[in-house]
Amino acid sequence: MTTVTVDQIIHAKWLIPCEDKRVLEDHALIVENGKILDILPSAKVAAQYSSPSVEHLSTHALLPGFINTHTHIGMNFFRGLADDLPLMEWLNDHIWPAERAWVNHDLVFDASLFAAAEMIRSGTTCFNEMYFFLNATAEATDQAGLRGHVGITVIDFPTAWAKTTDEYIAKGLDFYQQYKNHERITATFAPHAIYTVGEKTLVKVRDLAQEHGLRINMHIQETIEEIEQSIAFTKKRPLKRLQDIDFISPQLLAVHMTQLEEEDMEILHRHQPQIVHCPESNMKLAAGICPVNRLLNSGLNVALGTDGVASNNDLDMLGEMRSAAFSAKINAENPQALPAEQALQMATLNGAKALGIEGLTGSLTVGKSADFIAINLDEIETQPLYHPCSQIVYSAARQQVSDVWVAGERLMKKRELLTLDEKELIQKAKSWRQKIKK
Amino acid sequence: MTTVTVDQIIHAKWLIPCEDKRVLEDHALIVENGKILDILPSAKVAAQYSSPSVEHLSTHALLPGFINTHTHIGMNFFRGLADDLPLMEWLNDHIWPAERAWVNHDLVFDASLFAAAEMIRSGTTCFNEMYFFLNATAEATDQAGLRGHVGITVIDFPTAWAKTTDEYIAKGLDFYQQYKNHERITATFAPHAIYTVGEKTLVKVRDLAQEHGLRINMHIQETIEEIEQSIAFTKKRPLKRLQDIDFISPQLLAVHMTQLEEEDMEILHRHQPQIVHCPESNMKLAAGICPVNRLLNSGLNVALGTDGVASNNDLDMLGEMRSAAFSAKINAENPQALPAEQALQMATLNGAKALGIEGLTGSLTVGKSADFIAINLDEIETQPLYHPCSQIVYSAARQQVSDVWVAGERLMKKRELLTLDEKELIQKAKSWRQKIKK
Repeated sequence: MTTVTVDQIIHAKWLIPCEDKRVLEDHALIVENGKILDILPSAKVAAQYSSPSVEHLSTHALLPGFINTHTHIGMNFFRGLADDLPLMEWLNDHIWPAERAWVNHDLVFDASLFAAAEMIRSGTTCFNEMYFFLNATAEATDQAGLRGHVGITVIDFPTAWAKTTDEYIAKGLDFYQQYKNHERITATFAPHAIYTVGEKTLVKVRDLAQEHGLRINMHIQETIEEIEQSIAFTKKRPLKRLQDIDFISPQLLAVHMTQLEEEDMEILHRHQPQIVHCPESNMKLAAGICPVNRLLNSGLNVALGTDGVASNNDLDMLGEMRSAAFSAKINAENPQALPAEQALQMATLNGAKALGIEGLTGSLTVGKSADFIAINLDEIETQPLYHPCSQIVYSAARQQVSDVWVAGERLMKKRELLTLDEKELIQKAKSWRQKIKK
Repeated sequence: MTTVTVDQIIHAKWLIPCEDKRVLEDHALIVENGKILDILPSAKVAAQYSSPSVEHLSTHALLPGFINTHTHIGMNFFRGLADDLPLMEWLNDHIWPAERAWVNHDLVFDASLFAAAEMIRSGTTCFNEMYFFLNATAEATDQAGLRGHVGITVIDFPTAWAKTTDEYIAKGLDFYQQYKNHERITATFAPHAIYTVGEKTLVKVRDLAQEHGLRINMHIQETIEEIEQSIAFTKKRPLKRLQDIDFISPQLLAVHMTQLEEEDMEILHRHQPQIVHCPESNMKLAAGICPVNRLLNSGLNVALGTDGVASNNDLDMLGEMRSAAFSAKINAENPQALPAEQALQMATLNGAKALGIEGLTGSLTVGKSADFIAINLDEIETQPLYHPCSQIVYSAARQQVSDVWVAGERLMKKRELLTLDEKELIQKAKSWRQKIKK
């Protein structure tokens, strides 16, 4: 009897592909050359495969790594700097002054590396960033071993990163050229919002994104104030203005979308953008609740993001799934809205679809990249166990994520980070805090 | 220089009394004879106190243990049995059949002990229970070392615990007599709800509670269906019916209260009951959101509870505080609603007030019982740290609770349970699951 020798064999009590609602029991994942070569019952492995690396995770669930579809990880050192404040006071008196004083390549690199540790520790394998100093974020992502989509932020006012709109775009295109062949790092466009980026700039971004085949991220209809201001200035709601300049397409990630009327729904159905839901940020800032149940039922793709830790205050996708389920049920007035299996799909496959990488990752599917995590369910808080998906969404905490792999590379083993130094990162965070606190 | 010898000296980086918004830095808690003898700057301790037990928690916050003001811990083995369902389908097809088949003294004892481990592991030192087989819960609570308020459940239909209303009451009064001198266990009354307990029974409960000086817990105005049914049958909302039989007073804990109109607010203001808010259960079951910001601002006392794990699905008061803050902000359309310091107070001192034990516990105050916990904030997810309260409410997870004391007795030390056997409890949970699953 001959067997095929493979890189890794991981046996697990449960394997949750997140392609549909299936949960496989006592199955194994076969990893070869960074990809998923096979998924089969553990009992059948010995007849087909052998490996120098065989793992038995007998109390764990294996599932695709989480895809955090909206982040500002460069802000990670501003966590908890100012909470429980109205948006404009928070921005004007706390966040913007801190950014003006401190945001540079070094801060963004250190903050991104620190955030990478937080993401790995809570099972995120891919994130979608909007911030400044893109190279700093990309370098940290590369070092951590994560998959990162890095937004070319465009905004019609000067920051420490760029002085003019043209400079934002030029720097962004340089970044795109530099990373366009990187296996794990992908450029996107990220015009900030309709109240900070003019239509002329948006048209330019639209054309460049099309030319280079890039996704576009944008905060859209996040708050009632954004809508009111838009109507006051232009007599149109933001989505209508974007439609009028041919900005909305499946390439667009519309982030937040807490304010939706019939007119908006028609535009969404006509142009099929990706929706990114950030329930904790939207609740904490009292922005509103995105009607995800309605959007999903109407066939739109809705992904999940934490937003930045300055407004959330963590990068924990387990907590975000729970908040998404809670807020969907209360918003739809229906306890059946966003069940656990669907919340898991939002946090994985829907994120991959939103980023246009569902052929590469987002589910445990033969041929896809080996981006996956293990969650240990043998703890007091997740016992007894009747339904693994329910337990993961409604009861598990981030510390139960035990192991993380991206493209077959192990980034965490039994809670130990393999690409990053946890103690050093905490020291860095403390030393930045000393400066920022002033 | 002479010093006083005391039982324990615990130095901490931060000490959060939860009496008000104060956070003390580099302070120590002095414990003598199960009580808080003193709170003073660490630098001044050596001149006044010595102890055979001195602890330095240099990266931790000390705070009063959480008071979980509404639980059904006897149901802990039904966690995740059936999620994402409408309330009546959940009860009729899953919870009630499981209860009919399995609820007895042994199940409630094992489930309560298991729940005690979960509570200790997430920093809860006191809980307020409504379930059956009161002695089983009390015995488990005693063994675990927790403080427990155990409700004499009264319901006008038969269960495995009692066949008639009189039997519920008689068994409950026996229980009360048996435990009335226990230092950590207190009986309360717990008529289930207005749709399961008739007015005649409620009047009896009211009189007995008054006679013995006991608190009364009741699910009130939890769902819109409860209100509609009440109006259909009696033309009155539940609160009005309760007012009409003199049932509402500061001795009453009105649990849930998601449905409130002007007429209800007037009744609340007139009679000043305690309100118990269970945000995660209310969101998960799509019951509604209790307007806690409005209630607190109008001077009413609002405490926090997780509800049972069959509907929540955990006993984690850290997560519950976060959900309380999120849902209060979205409900009040105001990001300043329920700031972190106030959420902490809801989870501690307000719980003690609701139970009428604020002279005994609920804050770190000289003379009160030494019921306190330590949370380690030196982790990636809670760094950098600008404001400890914000970090605890918005970023910390239950596994960061490192140590727990009740009445000066240590129940957990560096995450190790001292009164309970974690592995044995998990095995018990698994063996009950095998039976219940059928």
